[in-house]
This record gives sequence, structure tokens and C-alpha cells, in this order.
Amino acid sequence: MRFVSILMPSKSNMDVMSECAKTLEKFGVKHEVLITSAHRSLERTQAYVKEAESRGAQLFIVGAGMAAHLAGVVAALTTRPVIGVPLNTSPLHGVDALLSTVQMPSGIPVGVMAIGSAGATNSAFLAMQILALEDAELDAKLKEDRILKAKKVEVDSEDIEVRLL
Amino acid sequence: MRFVSILMPSKSNMDVMSECAKTLEKFGVKHEVLITSAHRSLERTQAYVKEAESRGAQLFIVGAGMAAHLAGVVAALTTRPVIGVPLNTSPLHGVDALLSTVQMPSGIPVGVMAIGSAGATNSAFLAMQILALEDAELDAKLKEDRILKAKKVEVDSEDIEVRLL
Amino acid sequence: MRFVSILMPSKSNMDVMSECAKTLEKFGVKHEVLITSAHRSLERTQAYVKEAESRGAQLFIVGAGMAAHLAGVVAALTTRPVIGVPLNTSPLHGVDALLSTVQMPSGIPVGVMAIGSAGATNSAFLAMQILALEDAELDAKLKEDRILKAKKVEVDSEDIEVRLL
Amino acid sequence: MRFVSILMPSKSNMDVMSECAKTLEKFGVKHEVLITSAHRSLERTQAYVKEAESRGAQLFIVGAGMAAHLAGVVAALTTRPVIGVPLNTSPLHGVDALLSTVQMPSGIPVGVMAIGSAGATNSAFLAMQILALEDAELDAKLKEDRILKAKKVEVDSEDIEVRLL
Amino acid sequence: MRFVSILMPSKSNMDVMSECAKTLEKFGVKHEVLITSAHRSLERTQAYVKEAESRGAQLFIVGAGMAAHLAGVVAALTTRPVIGVPLNTSPLHGVDALLSTVQMPSGIPVGVMAIGSAGATNSAFLAMQILALEDAELDAKLKEDRILKAKKVEVDSEDIEVRLL
Amino acid sequence: MRFVSILMPSKSNMDVMSECAKTLEKFGVKHEVLITSAHRSLERTQAYVKEAESRGAQLFIVGAGMAAHLAGVVAALTTRPVIGVPLNTSPLHGVDALLSTVQMPSGIPVGVMAIGSAGATNSAFLAMQILALEDAELDAKLKEDRILKAKKVEVDSEDIEVRLL
Amino acid sequence: MRFVSILMPSKSNMDVMSECAKTLEKFGVKHEVLITSAHRSLERTQAYVKEAESRGAQLFIVGAGMAAHLAGVVAALTTRPVIGVPLNTSPLHGVDALLSTVQMPSGIPVGVMAIGSAGATNSAFLAMQILALEDAELDAKLKEDRILKAKKVEVDSEDIEVRLL
Amino acid sequence: MRFVSILMPSKSNMDVMSECAKTLEKFGVKHEVLITSAHRSLERTQAYVKEAESRGAQLFIVGAGMAAHLAGVVAALTTRPVIGVPLNTSPLHGVDALLSTVQMPSGIPVGVMAIGSAGATNSAFLAMQILALEDAELDAKLKEDRILKAKKVEVDSEDIEVRLL
Repeated sequence: MRFVSILMPSKSNMDVMSECAKTLEKFGVKHEVLITSAHRSLERTQAYVKEAESRGAQLFIVGAGMAAHLAGVVAALTTRPVIGVPLNTSPLHGVDALLSTVQMPSGIPVGVMAIGSAGATNSAFLAMQILALEDAELDAKLKEDRILKAKKVEVDSEDIEVRLL
Repeated sequence: MRFVSILMPSKSNMDVMSECAKTLEKFGVKHEVLITSAHRSLERTQAYVKEAESRGAQLFIVGAGMAAHLAGVVAALTTRPVIGVPLNTSPLHGVDALLSTVQMPSGIPVGVMAIGSAGATNSAFLAMQILALEDAELDAKLKEDRILKAKKVEVDSEDIEVRLL
Repeated sequence: MRFVSILMPSKSNMDVMSECAKTLEKFGVKHEVLITSAHRSLERTQAYVKEAESRGAQLFIVGAGMAAHLAGVVAALTTRPVIGVPLNTSPLHGVDALLSTVQMPSGIPVGVMAIGSAGATNSAFLAMQILALEDAELDAKLKEDRILKAKKVEVDSEDIEVRLL
Repeated sequence: MRFVSILMPSKSNMDVMSECAKTLEKFGVKHEVLITSAHRSLERTQAYVKEAESRGAQLFIVGAGMAAHLAGVVAALTTRPVIGVPLNTSPLHGVDALLSTVQMPSGIPVGVMAIGSAGATNSAFLAMQILALEDAELDAKLKEDRILKAKKVEVDSEDIEVRLL
Repeated sequence: MRFVSILMPSKSNMDVMSECAKTLEKFGVKHEVLITSAHRSLERTQAYVKEAESRGAQLFIVGAGMAAHLAGVVAALTTRPVIGVPLNTSPLHGVDALLSTVQMPSGIPVGVMAIGSAGATNSAFLAMQILALEDAELDAKLKEDRILKAKKVEVDSEDIEVRLL
Repeated sequence: MRFVSILMPSKSNMDVMSECAKTLEKFGVKHEVLITSAHRSLERTQAYVKEAESRGAQLFIVGAGMAAHLAGVVAALTTRPVIGVPLNTSPLHGVDALLSTVQMPSGIPVGVMAIGSAGATNSAFLAMQILALEDAELDAKLKEDRILKAKKVEVDSEDIEVRLL
Repeated sequence: MRFVSILMPSKSNMDVMSECAKTLEKFGVKHEVLITSAHRSLERTQAYVKEAESRGAQLFIVGAGMAAHLAGVVAALTTRPVIGVPLNTSPLHGVDALLSTVQMPSGIPVGVMAIGSAGATNSAFLAMQILALEDAELDAKLKEDRILKAKKVEVDSEDIEVRLL
Repeated sequence: MRFVSILMPSKSNMDVMSECAKTLEKFGVKHEVLITSAHRSLERTQAYVKEAESRGAQLFIVGAGMAAHLAGVVAALTTRPVIGVPLNTSPLHGVDALLSTVQMPSGIPVGVMAIGSAGATNSAFLAMQILALEDAELDAKLKEDRILKAKKVEVDSEDIEVRLL
């Protein structure tokens, strides 16, 4: 079974990372959600990534704040694509998490999203765009979503639009 | 034909983005390299992305510096995965390009790499990890590469190692 | 008919960008307000900019947050002056929008204002200063406004002033 | 006579600001170049701005580094459009000049360009786009320049292009 | 009459700058408080600085936010010491005001304090330390204040102290 | 008697630094808590550090905000290990305190923790890890704590876990 | 045997980290030097840390650049003290490494040094200060070093001193 | 005898701080230059400041880089005015020194100059402006210097001026 694995180091991260799960849910994409830590439960992380990959995890979405090492560690454990979501959980507004996630060294990539909820939502979209390479139905849904988004721009605009005749 | 498309707005970006092309080359992954701009040749960018997608472009790797809009514009034109490489081409050391690439709004994701050459190399690796989901041979090569990298750490270490007996 | 076009990618941007519209209103300068996006509705943006220019749009004011690409994309579509207003809509306090708007490459300029409401107000003033080059009445109003502002400084000062005799 | 006035506080700024003058030169736009300082020669600045405006200065382009106050002071002295170019002349890489120029308070706008030479070039382009509102010939040149820039992208691309057949 | 002049560009700055006035008040140091702006009332600023200096202003304390040009402009108008207080009045938390105030070019110094209320208080202390060079009574008060501050540390400590016997 | 000394310059710092004291308390590690300042009570700081060292202070934990000099000054007064906790007490979110504490010159080290409460807690853990080098019982408690933390990850995960069968 | 373990992910890090080894050497403190990576050789890292701890590693000094995860991963593997040295190996001048090393979450501390060579030297000093808690001879050497440093200040001063008689 | 005391923690700082001494020299202002450190020679610093104050030091100019604590420590030791010059001696380009010097807590002010040589020069000017409050001859020299600076602007301008007739 092909699925997406969503990981984060703390229960409180779910406030933001639920946007990712909800987005996958809405498009009918199978996913798991799990708490695991690079620092407090490194062995659990190692065991889970191996096992999830063997069960069909196609890619891993990892949300983390502060010195956000989890995405990098997951990337070290698999050759499946890893998407990182830097979270705003410290006085530094997520700059710490952004740099800790994006500045990965050569050979072990993490694809990084925006800080916080926009990034959490987009991690689901990037994951689906990857899966859609081999899933025409999902690809169609994504293309439909783009059309809806473009239409929503027009509808939203009408609420505030000032047009000269 | 499945291939990777590498885009950048300026010839000088090739200094760094060639790392991406070389890495794909080394692993035998088909790719195109092209200069196009979100600002100076928006229509060319639009036409190319549509056409490349129809010819089999599986994903787009986009390197850009300063107000790096090209990755975002390409992401707006396709539902194929887009990988962004922020380049260090201004006095701001690539912070401008990093934020312009990573802070994408909900629904139009770009997976962002490290600033500069590490990011250029990693964009090739992330692209290959995505393609390897459906290409067992490439996946085997990537796994082999990880083993070689681990071995290289050991060999490099021997050069400087001080061990107590 | 000569007019100013005010664009933004999201309805929520109107909270701040209304300062721009109100300022133009106050000085009797014709303007349009529209939602359009570089990412979610690129075609709408292209069509609108061309059409607005043909109808008499003299310049474009664009407010956007995060990876604020809209001003740059509008600048790519017209040789009319484009004024950018970076909005504070992410944990990065508008630094992302500022750099995404100001660090434009050679040949495609955007004139950038302060982050947030001061910038929104000033975008209207800069637009009017441009239009006033050919509109003596508007120029007189702007000069009058400067006198009023100088007087307001004096009046405000009286409320808190401590002067030694 | 309509002309553009280019101001900077130090002779060494001419290294970068000459890009602005050269660009105006190339398009046949009349301009003056002058050194004046907000701090070392405030009276000269005041006298010049008033006098230049009376002689036909349509707008002011101001390049400055560090605590770059000159653009703001010029903006305070005129209702002509003022374009600011932050220069990279301190250990802070122009971030000091960028913030000192862009964060102008309500009512006294400066339209800010990128840090350094890209900004210097673009200040000329924005100035010309403003002048072109009433100068069809200049507007035609600017539109032609856009076409040339788009073509140059194609030519540059050919040098490095890798295309799959 | 010798006195300290406290300037700021906006009535709202008084929220923080009142700390400065209160501190001078407490030590019995004569001072004026005034609103004036480098941008909205440059002539008033020029006239005031000259006149205040002639009446006995020994130094100027200037609080300002955003592109805080007022301290630099006052410094350009006098050879009396100028103390700058960067205020936190924009989304950038006073970093804009700090850099606009501290990065003054050679020859026109501003002595800069911390951002916000600590800086406002300290501007009064630095002013008094300068005046105390020729005012033994004030110097004695300042030395007494240091002793009181040291004692307050001890008293505060007692409230939370945990000491091992 | 071996103990840990916790220092901070202001009573208000106790809001965050109490996390440090509570953590040491929980593990039964003897400690003192004291307010002292590098600026307001330098002599008290000097006297205390010498005296505490002679009484058995094994290491010093110092929390401070803004231009956080206290940790550096304590480090100058002793060869006991000094742990610094940068506090978020200014508009700069603790970046000022972080850089003031971490960028110590050669020869006088301070071991720096995260900004704020995570850093306060970790200062206690690093202190205990140091003491545990010679305290097998404490070392056992720390190892037990790691196991508990790993288990807590699992328990927390169960609350939000989504697993595919 | 008690010793210090020095780890880094890349041979090129030795340019700076050799300062650490040289300092320990000078004071006669036993140490190992090794290359290992959190990303390219996670298993080697895990095996080494466990084994080194069992052989007597008292603490770990870890130098790393970019998204510097190695110190955090080592800290997750041991309750021995871990000292982190952020290295300047990317366009971001070590800010990425600093934040990735210092912003560790509660319970897994890393004591962080200055960026680059000052930090590498100080990591040796902090390590020795920790070891000196149980090594009176080393403590005496450290105290002697402080005296020498103070004397060197005086000698250095003589070279440039200007004193009034 | 009234004089200015210039302090710095390292001989290498003299490269930049010599600008301060040269400027005072040029205006005939008596000064001392000394190396002393807040960390390596705190007692020397304390002894010197007290003794210098008793001999007639009117104010202290302190240049320092990295975690620049020296200015703050000197400010804690005297009620004479202290002027801080942040030096660019680390990968952080002086931002560390700037924040460590400027973010002083309430009651212990340091008047901070620009980073590096502009700041070193300006520290001399601010010192002279303070001394000139009681030294009419020096005040006249400073006013003369302002006139020369204004003239130099004009002369420099002539070299590059382009004026329309």
C-alpha cells in the first residue's frame, strides 16, 4: 500500500501539522501521523522509517521547530523523498527551524516548505504532486484544485473589487 | 520520455547549477537545461513549461538569485513537482533568494534546497529520489551512493584520525 | 481615462491595502482595486494588466506578503511604473515580502514601500506624485498636504510640549 | 527642460551609481549627477532640490549607503517622485541602507530599488517608465528594450542549453 | 540656561520617550520636549535646533522609529552631542530604527541607545553623565544612583534567593 | 559541598530561570539562586563568584537578556564551567542575548543554551551531565530520564497517531 | 582512560577544528579526532559514541557547519556533556550552524561556542574546565593560563600604548 | 589634566581604532590608548578605569568585537560617558558586537557608534563634541570642520558632476 508518512517531534506540533493531514484527507490520499523525535527517540525514528518504507511509505513529511533535526535525520535513513516543514515554536519565529531544515549538506536532500501553516498545507500538495506522477486520478484532482483556486480568486475579488467603467 | 527540466534566469547561474546537471548525468538521468526568466521572458517560461510537461518533464528544478520568482512562477504553471535552489548572487548572500523561494503561499508548493552549490547538488538528488519511486534501478543506485558516502566518511576520517589505544 | 490600479493576491490583504485606496480616494484620484495572484491566477493577472493598461492604467500598486511575487510579475507584464507594498503576513514579519519585492533583477524595476500600513499609504502618495508630474491640480493638493502635515506636527507637539522660558 | 537628477553623498558611490547614469544615457534621457549629503551639506541639498525642481527636474534618484538618509531628506524637500538605491558600503552588506531607505513613514514616500548595481540600473528604468507616461517615444524604446531582453534570454540559453530530442 | 532637548517625530513616541523625561525630572535636570520631524517639518527642525542651541541646549536626545532619520538630521545641524533612541514602531521590531540611527557616516556622530524603553531611560543617563562632567552635584547624584542600584540588586535577590548553608 | 550556582541580573528573569532550578530540584541536585549584575553590581558578582567557588560551586548557570554580559563576566572570574542562557527580554527576541553570550573570545568559554525556557531547562541538564561524570547515581537518573522521555514520545504519539493497517 | 572525543562531519572542518585539538594537546589532555556524519554515516556515529563512552570518553566536542545536526545527534546518544562548535561553511556565515546547534529542545542540551576558530579553541577550554573539576593539576594549568593571558594583555598593550604623564 | 581614554581588548583592534586616535590627534585633543579586556584582564580594567578617572579621563571610548563586553564593563565602573565602537572581527560582520554594545540595560548607558572605521572616527567626534561643551576653542574647530566637510562635498562633486545648462 502506498502512503504518506507525517512525522513530528511533539504533540503540540499537531496544531499546525494537522493542516497537512487534513489536506491529504480531502484528496483521499492515505497517510500515517506519528510523533517521534531525533533527540528523545532516535531509535524509534530509525525503526519506524525502515518499517514504514517497507510497508509502502512513498515519502515522509516532517514538521519540526527550533533546531529542527528530525527531517534531516529521516532523510539520512531513507532514499524516499523527505519534505520538511519548519515550525514557529521559539522566540526566533521559525528562522531557526527554517535554517536547520533547509541548509542540508550535499547528498541528503530535504525539500523545504514555508514556515508554519502555509508550509504544512503545501507539504501535502508537494507530496500529492509527487504521487500524481504515477496516479492520473490524483493528478486530475490537483489540476481541478488549481482551477478552483483560480476561480476563488475571482470570487474573493468581487467582494472588494472597485472597477472603473 | 521521462526527464528532468533544469531552469535558471541567467547564464551566470550555470556556474552553480552545473552541479545539478553533473549529478543527474552521473546517475544517467535524462535532463534538459534552459535559461528562461519570470521577468524578462515570462511568455517563454509559460510556453516551455507546458510543452516540456507534455513531452514528459517529470519535475522542474529551478535555480535563481535575488528576488527569485522563477521557481514560484513555474510552480504556478504546472502540477509537476518543482524544486527550488536559492542562489547567492547579491550582497544578501542568498537570504533574499531563500525567502523568495521558500515562503510560497498555500497551494502552490516549491521544495527548497540549501543556498548555492550544496542546494544545486541536492536538487538533483531529490529529483532522483522522486523518480526512483517508480524506477527500481535508480533507487538501487541511490542506495549504493549512500553506502559509498558512508564509506567515504571512513576513508576521509583516516586521513586526520587520532585514536587512543 | 487615467487611473491607478491596486492589486493584491488575497482578500485579507485588503485590511492593510485599504489605506492605499482611502488615500487615493481622499485626493480624488481614480483607481481600481482587484484581487489577482501570480500563483493561483497567473493568466487572470496577465489578461488584467494588459487590459488595464489599454484602458488607461497609469501605474500599478501591488501589495503582497510572504514570497511576494505579484509585484515582480506585474512589472514583467508592463512598462508602466509598478509600486510594491510588502505585507506582514507570515512569522517573518514581512522581511520575506520585502526582500521578494525589492531585490528585483536589472531591467524590471519595482519601487518598494515600507512594510505594512505605512507602505500602503505611501504607495498612494508615490503614485500621486508620479501623476502630479502632469496634473498641476493634484500637485497643488500634494503640496498643500505637506503644509498640513507640517502644521499637524506643531499641533501634536503642543499636546506634549515642555518648553523652558 | 525635463530631466532626471541623480544624487549621492560620496564620490565613491559613483562606482555603482554610474550604472544609473549610463542607462539613462543609453536611452537619451537628460540627467544631472551631483554629490550632496544629508549630513555634511544639508543646506546645499535643500538649495539644490528646490532649484533643480524649478529648472525641470522630474524626479530624483538617490543612492546612499549605511544610515542612508539622503533619499528621505530629498523626499521631504519635494513632491517630485524620489527613487532610492541602497548601497553596500558597510560591513552590513547594504541591509542598513535598505532599511534606512525603505522604512519611510506615512506621507513621504521613497520608491526603493535592490541593493547595489541592480538597483542602480533599475532606478534608471523606473525613472524612464515614469517619464514615458508622457513620452511615447521613450515608452516605445522601453517596450523595445523588453523585447531585446527577452531575445537575449534565448540567445544566452543557446550557449548552455541541453535539449532532449 | 543649560538644558537637554528631547525630540521625537510623533506624539505616539511619547509613550516610550516619557521614560527619558521622567528620568531627567527625577534628577532635577532641565529639559524641553518637542515633536518635530525630519520629513514632515524639516524647516521647523532646523529652526528649532539652531534656536535651542543659542538658548543653551547642551545636547539633543532624539527618539524615532522606522527609517529614523531625525537623530541624523539633528546631528547635521549642530555640534552639540546627539543621543539617538531607536523605537520599536514597525513590524521589524526596531531593527530598522537601530540601523538607521547607528550607521552614521564619518564626521556626524550619533550616540545610540538600546531599542525602546531601556534606551529611552539610558539616553537620560548618558545626557546626565555628560552634563556631570561640569556639574559636581549631578555627578554625586549619579554616583549615589549607582549605589542605590547595587543595593536594589541585593534587595531584589533576597526575594528569590536560595542559599546553601 | 558540591553545588550549582544559578545567577541572573534581574528578578523578572526568574520567570524563565525557575525552570532551571525546578529541574535541578527534581533530580536532587543542590543549587543556589542569586540575583547579581555585571553592570549594576560588578563587585558583588566578583565577591560572590570567588566565595561560591571556595564553598564548592562546581559550575555557574547564568541567565541574562539584552546585552547579556553576566555570563561572560562570570566566566572571566572563574575556571569553573559557565553555562549561559540567553533570555528573550527585548524587542529583538533574544537574538541580542544569544550573540552577547555565545560569541565569546578565545580562552574564556561560555557554553550556551537555547533562548528562553528550553535553554533554562537544558542548562540544568548540561550541569547535571557534567556533575554526573563523577556521580554514578546522578548519571543513572539522567539515563533513566532519557528512557522516560523516549516513552513519553510514544505515549504522546498515541493521542494523535493515525496508523494504516 | 579519560579522554575527550572531537567529531566533525567533513575533512575540511579540520581547518578550524584543529584549533581545538592543538589546545588540548598543549595542555596534555588526551583526545581522539574523528570524522563522522549525522546524515551520511548515522550508524557509524551511533556505534562510535557508545563505544567511545565505554572506553572513557568524558565529553564530546562536535564541530559542524550548515544544518549542523551532528552535535544534536551525538547529544541524543549519550548523557556525557556535548559541546557544539558552529562552523562558517556556507554563504550564511555560520548563522545556520549556530541556530541548528544552539536551539536544542528541552532535555537534550548542547553547550554552544562562538562560530569558527574562537569557538573551536573555546570548546577545548570548556572541556578542560569540566575535566578540571576532578583534576587539580589541570585546574592549576587553567588558572596559570588565565594569568598568562592577563599578562599578555599588558605586553600587547605596551606595543601600542599611549599614556599621558 | 582632561583627556580621553581609548580602550580595546586586542592589539589587532588598533587597525580600526587608530582612526579614533588619529582624529583626536588632528584636533589636538589629549588621549590615552590602552589594551585591556573585560574577560582576560578584568582587574586591570577596573584598576585602570578608576585611576584614569582620578587623573582626569573625561570619557572612555571602547572598541571591541564579537561578544563585545568591554564597553559595558567600563560603563559599570564609572559615571563618565562611555562611547562604544562595535568592531567587525567575526563571521557575523559586527552584528554581534553591535548588539552586545547597544542593548545595555537601564541605568548603565553606552553611546554606540557605527560598526568599524566610520564608528571609530565618529567616536572621536562625539568625544570632542562632549568636551567642546566646555571648550570654546575645540567647539570652534568642530564648527570649522563641518564647514570644511561641506566644502569637500562640493569639491568632490565637481569631479563627477554632470550639470545641464
